[in-house]
Amino acid sequence: MIRSMHLVEGRELRTGLSRDEFREVIANGQGLLWVDIYQEPREAVEPMLREVFGFHPLAIEDALDEAHVPKVDDWGSYLYVVLHAVLNSTLQDGKELQTDEIDIFAGSRYIVTFQDYPIPAVDRVWNVVQRDHRVLDRGAGHLLYRIIEETESDYLTLLDSIDDTLSRIEDEIFANPEPTLLSEVFSLKRVLLRIRRGIAPQREVINKLARGDFQQFSPEDRMYFRDVYDHLVRLNDILESLRDLVGSALEIYLSVVSNRLNDVLKTLTIITTLFMPLSFIVGFFGMNFFQATDLFASWTGRISFVVVLSAVGATPILMYTWMRRRAWV
Amino acid sequence: MIRSMHLVEGRELRTGLSRDEFREVIANGQGLLWVDIYQEPREAVEPMLREVFGFHPLAIEDALDEAHVPKVDDWGSYLYVVLHAVLNSTLQDGKELQTDEIDIFAGSRYIVTFQDYPIPAVDRVWNVVQRDHRVLDRGAGHLLYRIIEETESDYLTLLDSIDDTLSRIEDEIFANPEPTLLSEVFSLKRVLLRIRRGIAPQREVINKLARGDFQQFSPEDRMYFRDVYDHLVRLNDILESLRDLVGSALEIYLSVVSNRLNDVLKTLTIITTLFMPLSFIVGFFGMNFFQATDLFASWTGRISFVVVLSAVGATPILMYTWMRRRAWV
Amino acid sequence: MIRSMHLVEGRELRTGLSRDEFREVIANGQGLLWVDIYQEPREAVEPMLREVFGFHPLAIEDALDEAHVPKVDDWGSYLYVVLHAVLNSTLQDGKELQTDEIDIFAGSRYIVTFQDYPIPAVDRVWNVVQRDHRVLDRGAGHLLYRIIEETESDYLTLLDSIDDTLSRIEDEIFANPEPTLLSEVFSLKRVLLRIRRGIAPQREVINKLARGDFQQFSPEDRMYFRDVYDHLVRLNDILESLRDLVGSALEIYLSVVSNRLNDVLKTLTIITTLFMPLSFIVGFFGMNFFQATDLFASWTGRISFVVVLSAVGATPILMYTWMRRRAWV
Amino acid sequence: MIRSMHLVEGRELRTGLSRDEFREVIANGQGLLWVDIYQEPREAVEPMLREVFGFHPLAIEDALDEAHVPKVDDWGSYLYVVLHAVLNSTLQDGKELQTDEIDIFAGSRYIVTFQDYPIPAVDRVWNVVQRDHRVLDRGAGHLLYRIIEETESDYLTLLDSIDDTLSRIEDEIFANPEPTLLSEVFSLKRVLLRIRRGIAPQREVINKLARGDFQQFSPEDRMYFRDVYDHLVRLNDILESLRDLVGSALEIYLSVVSNRLNDVLKTLTIITTLFMPLSFIVGFFGMNFFQATDLFASWTGRISFVVVLSAVGATPILMYTWMRRRAWV
Amino acid sequence: MIRSMHLVEGRELRTGLSRDEFREVIANGQGLLWVDIYQEPREAVEPMLREVFGFHPLAIEDALDEAHVPKVDDWGSYLYVVLHAVLNSTLQDGKELQTDEIDIFAGSRYIVTFQDYPIPAVDRVWNVVQRDHRVLDRGAGHLLYRIIEETESDYLTLLDSIDDTLSRIEDEIFANPEPTLLSEVFSLKRVLLRIRRGIAPQREVINKLARGDFQQFSPEDRMYFRDVYDHLVRLNDILESLRDLVGSALEIYLSVVSNRLNDVLKTLTIITTLFMPLSFIVGFFGMNFFQATDLFASWTGRISFVVVLSAVGATPILMYTWMRRRAWV
Repeated sequence: MIRSMHLVEGRELRTGLSRDEFREVIANGQGLLWVDIYQEPREAVEPMLREVFGFHPLAIEDALDEAHVPKVDDWGSYLYVVLHAVLNSTLQDGKELQTDEIDIFAGSRYIVTFQDYPIPAVDRVWNVVQRDHRVLDRGAGHLLYRIIEETESDYLTLLDSIDDTLSRIEDEIFANPEPTLLSEVFSLKRVLLRIRRGIAPQREVINKLARGDFQQFSPEDRMYFRDVYDHLVRLNDILESLRDLVGSALEIYLSVVSNRLNDVLKTLTIITTLFMPLSFIVGFFGMNFFQATDLFASWTGRISFVVVLSAVGATPILMYTWMRRRAWV
Repeated sequence: MIRSMHLVEGRELRTGLSRDEFREVIANGQGLLWVDIYQEPREAVEPMLREVFGFHPLAIEDALDEAHVPKVDDWGSYLYVVLHAVLNSTLQDGKELQTDEIDIFAGSRYIVTFQDYPIPAVDRVWNVVQRDHRVLDRGAGHLLYRIIEETESDYLTLLDSIDDTLSRIEDEIFANPEPTLLSEVFSLKRVLLRIRRGIAPQREVINKLARGDFQQFSPEDRMYFRDVYDHLVRLNDILESLRDLVGSALEIYLSVVSNRLNDVLKTLTIITTLFMPLSFIVGFFGMNFFQATDLFASWTGRISFVVVLSAVGATPILMYTWMRRRAWV
Repeated sequence: MIRSMHLVEGRELRTGLSRDEFREVIANGQGLLWVDIYQEPREAVEPMLREVFGFHPLAIEDALDEAHVPKVDDWGSYLYVVLHAVLNSTLQDGKELQTDEIDIFAGSRYIVTFQDYPIPAVDRVWNVVQRDHRVLDRGAGHLLYRIIEETESDYLTLLDSIDDTLSRIEDEIFANPEPTLLSEVFSLKRVLLRIRRGIAPQREVINKLARGDFQQFSPEDRMYFRDVYDHLVRLNDILESLRDLVGSALEIYLSVVSNRLNDVLKTLTIITTLFMPLSFIVGFFGMNFFQATDLFASWTGRISFVVVLSAVGATPILMYTWMRRRAWV
Repeated sequence: MIRSMHLVEGRELRTGLSRDEFREVIANGQGLLWVDIYQEPREAVEPMLREVFGFHPLAIEDALDEAHVPKVDDWGSYLYVVLHAVLNSTLQDGKELQTDEIDIFAGSRYIVTFQDYPIPAVDRVWNVVQRDHRVLDRGAGHLLYRIIEETESDYLTLLDSIDDTLSRIEDEIFANPEPTLLSEVFSLKRVLLRIRRGIAPQREVINKLARGDFQQFSPEDRMYFRDVYDHLVRLNDILESLRDLVGSALEIYLSVVSNRLNDVLKTLTIITTLFMPLSFIVGFFGMNFFQATDLFASWTGRISFVVVLSAVGATPILMYTWMRRRAWV
Repeated sequence: MIRSMHLVEGRELRTGLSRDEFREVIANGQGLLWVDIYQEPREAVEPMLREVFGFHPLAIEDALDEAHVPKVDDWGSYLYVVLHAVLNSTLQDGKELQTDEIDIFAGSRYIVTFQDYPIPAVDRVWNVVQRDHRVLDRGAGHLLYRIIEETESDYLTLLDSIDDTLSRIEDEIFANPEPTLLSEVFSLKRVLLRIRRGIAPQREVINKLARGDFQQFSPEDRMYFRDVYDHLVRLNDILESLRDLVGSALEIYLSVVSNRLNDVLKTLTIITTLFMPLSFIVGFFGMNFFQATDLFASWTGRISFVVVLSAVGATPILMYTWMRRRAWV
């Protein structure tokens, strides 16, 4: 889909512009135009970007083709910015992390955003802008800032949800170290690796925008980018802590398992240590060197047989109950 | 609460100034004004910061809204400094680490400090200043230095207390590796991660102040900031050592557990190795290939039965005593 | 083999040029010449490179002799570029990673590529160029870019295939931790180490080309090199993630093994705990202190003997079936 | 104690100068004065440093108060240098590492050294200088170099002694992995952490002196500082290797323990595997389904009873001897 | 020994020059002089270096005294270069790594090399130069390059031999994890640490030579140094990989041991699980509640006794054979 909005200060917001109107706006140079493209076939988008906006073939190819590291390229009259955004900002119920690339062409009078799937962050900004036109009045730099900030805030939500999940897993490991918890930990580790691959270069992109490497934005815009940059630094810190904690979760797992093992083997040793000597003693007097006496005939009478049978029947039940209580079975 | 003090050199200290007096002092430009705000509703603070002091909306938003990485922003006539401070400087009795953000606006003639909760460090400086006015006479830079130094010194106390806790835990692990010690170690690890997230950027902030990036402070002030910077470098070193030692504590735990396990299993093996062959031998002569003889009738007499019963009764008691002594049970 | 192609814009492509024609083209300075050398004896190549092209002895020696780290040397009128390429871009069916060095001499009017074995990437570019002459029209820099890009894209395929292999191994470890999986993991680790040794300096080479350290290439070429550089940064990120995941695979292995061990030992302990007391009890009443009574004669009749024999025969079969189900045997 | 020496070239060495003489020498500006202060109450030192030498209050506070990271501050007419020195340069017989801070004020005509405890390195230089006055003739820079070099050389001795200790521990672990060895390893780890916290900034201090950041010293002096810097780089390398080897010692411990465990459990399994089936067989024929025959009456005669009793008595002794030989008991 | 050679272009090579001839050559300034000193008493060398060549006392002291980090010092008319060389370039048959320091004084017309032991690399260059005088014609820079290159190439041989050793050890660990293999791995780790301590600063030395920091060498020489620098970078890469693989070898060891342990304990558990219930059953019917019947008299006859005795004798043999096959004993 291609959707667009155009605002000249003081006038009314126009939406759903045609290509000719795009061309006119770019030539004319008044107001701010935002074109948002998603789930559109390549053949439809490529000619528009090339002919209507006149972007460089390499930039268009980058946008249409292939997954890229986040980056910003200065093509003179416009910037080409690649960001990674998350499509789902929590991982509850075993959902996989889904990320998508946002390609943004930012000229002084227009912003063109291009996504494969509709990204929630972009959508939210689109809706805000429709309700509050003043965002457009503050220029392309400010709109770019809004989109980037919204994108990063989804990462923050995601990391917070991962942090909660990790805390829960840690508690469960201390309570009962199941292998399924391990596999959850390792899939979180993979997720964090993927996020880091997106966040680290993203930070560099925002840093460039904040440092004022590009003439396209005003000092006021730069201040806002610096603010986003601060968020990204924090995001990165949290990410590193989480990676550290994933490592801790594994260490906790291994040490809790090793504790349990110790417990189990202590029991085994105690039982063996108690009963092996006893078995030897009673075995000794079971040898046929000795003739059975009738001194203790009552010990092998009916009553004692019933008692023995009961003991034989009760021992497994008692043991099972005891092991249940220690959470072994 | 909003509390304030104002000192013009040579005159008496005024406290509890009204908003109009703030305005007057800022316009007038004489003496040093310190306004300290905490536990105040957002709606009350925001207009004052904006209208009376004329701070930039972005800086005010940063201060009121959201947890930030420590940073310093130069807004021309004033600096905006974000620091992290600890509310409790020891973790005894299982207390959690509580940190809060201090937002400081430092102009040449005023310091505005803003906290969510009353931070002990700020409170201490407030009390010192009331007793000893000369601190105010030395200017805004010096007051800022005092606040920062007090804040950092709480971190030092905290790290020292963590170091003590770790030493205690290590000793306890060597004595008796309990899973609860492990969970203490891991919670210390989380605490250190949080402190590092505060300290590392804090160091960068002080470095900027010490390097003289800002015109607002005199060379004399910079010397003091350099001193705090040295403390922070040391703090960071201690922090890294502690992180290292937390790792060691875990290694100690695992190796002590593995030692104990070894001990337990050695006992198991010794007992089994001793009694299994014996049981086989006595079992062999218990087979019904052999007819019982009456050669050793006395061995199965009353006395020996009593001895056997005693042995059967005593063995568990002896074993239990022995295992007690080895701290197994 | 030595193969060559020469294109002057607007004219037809010439292939299979003689040495004299090489000399002529270099002197003449028109069009673009590509000479590709592989599996050629050292004695045949060395004089041609020295006399016909006039390369520096040190550069020729580097090319002919010995494995090198990827690098780029500026020899004034030409660049000497060393790259590493992969000969097989998947490791399926236990194939070993095979890499080869490409030595490229890039003058303004010619490209000389030298390989020990025919490298698939170079071959693909050769075929593309034969079908589409325009690549040659864009100059030596562009041709160099095409060769490098094709080389890097093989690395990407390789890393993707390693990623798949790792995922498969992880799943198999969770299902059944076999030592052969471990040895697969460690051989992947060796492969990744080798790839890193090639990729890291390669990135530096492309960075130099992209930064415009060399006068030989136009700004347009540099843009393309920057694009390849972005790919290499991504490659490196993936590589680091994979190294991380290889470490995870080992951790998974160890923790799954330790889980199984726990399981096995729990069973051992349960069985021992159940049967040791029982064995003691029945042993106690097997002592010859007691004379056998004829109260329970029926218990040792024919029927019960058959039952006992069946039990003795059935127990191993049942146990074996049960252990099979738990995947122990 | 406060001790002092003063040498004007060509004249005789004066020792034990009074405060007035200090003042005179500083004003006069001839020769080189060395004042060494240790174990002196704060109240006595502070006024002297402030009034006689005129040092900055912040520098004096740093020197008197509180443990600091090694650093060098340029106060114009003098440098303030903080170094860490070791009081004991070996750790034999379980001695703890003791370090102390040396504070050095280095003017062009005087050196003031301040320590809490008499540091051996400073003492050694003091004695050398008394024997060989030429050291003083070469100026304050050279004297500073001598003090620093002597300090560093104690670190080298210390690290060498730690290296020896580690080798010994490694050998003992291979021979017999005792938990006390582990605790030795971990205390070495703590020592290395402490040394690193002193060495790393020390290196930076010497680097600044060697780079010629300070006007107070001649190029000749700088050459000597560069020499010390080289030593410190080596010291640091050794330190890092030792930290690595401490990690190895732990790995050795864990793997030797795990080897032993394996050994122990193999024995357990072998014994169990051998005797459990045998016990079953002999148990089978002990059942009362079978009437005892008199076919093998001789097997249960006197002689065999003695043999059995002997076997029962000898087995534990043999087993114990065998386990002794394998170093289990 | 002190040996020397001197070549003036076009003339014949002179060897075995006297000290006066050294002096003359240095004064005269024609041709290239190489003086190689080894296993010479300190008292003989020191005056020569000081008086004949006029080197700085600090440089001479560095050369004669004490082990140093590789470094290069510019003393104006000559360079002082310290390198580390290996005396044995393989570690076969348990040989220890032996390294020595080469001290090189490189003036524009002479090279003085000083070693404690004759270093093979220097020796090889000496022999090559005697056969092929042209090396000397290319000047002091080129001779220095030859010596350095030869030195580095021994490191490469050494690392290759370590790589082979590691591969062999890894294979042996997979086949049979012996503690002696572990101790081999750890001694390799120590060797690699030592090599790294030599290689890392060596690389910096060559880098300085290659970057042209020194006026003494021609641009042509620099090109050659750059070539050696490339080798060193590769050496360093290999070194890092080897350190990584040493870590892997340990991980392999631990996981193979843990696998074996698992195997052993599985067997223990299976045996116990099979025979414990059986022992209980047969024990039950061995109790004296039951009078023996004569129903199965034939079961306790002569034949079955022989069978039982055979079984009792054969079981240990069979078990032993089976454990042998599983490589336990």
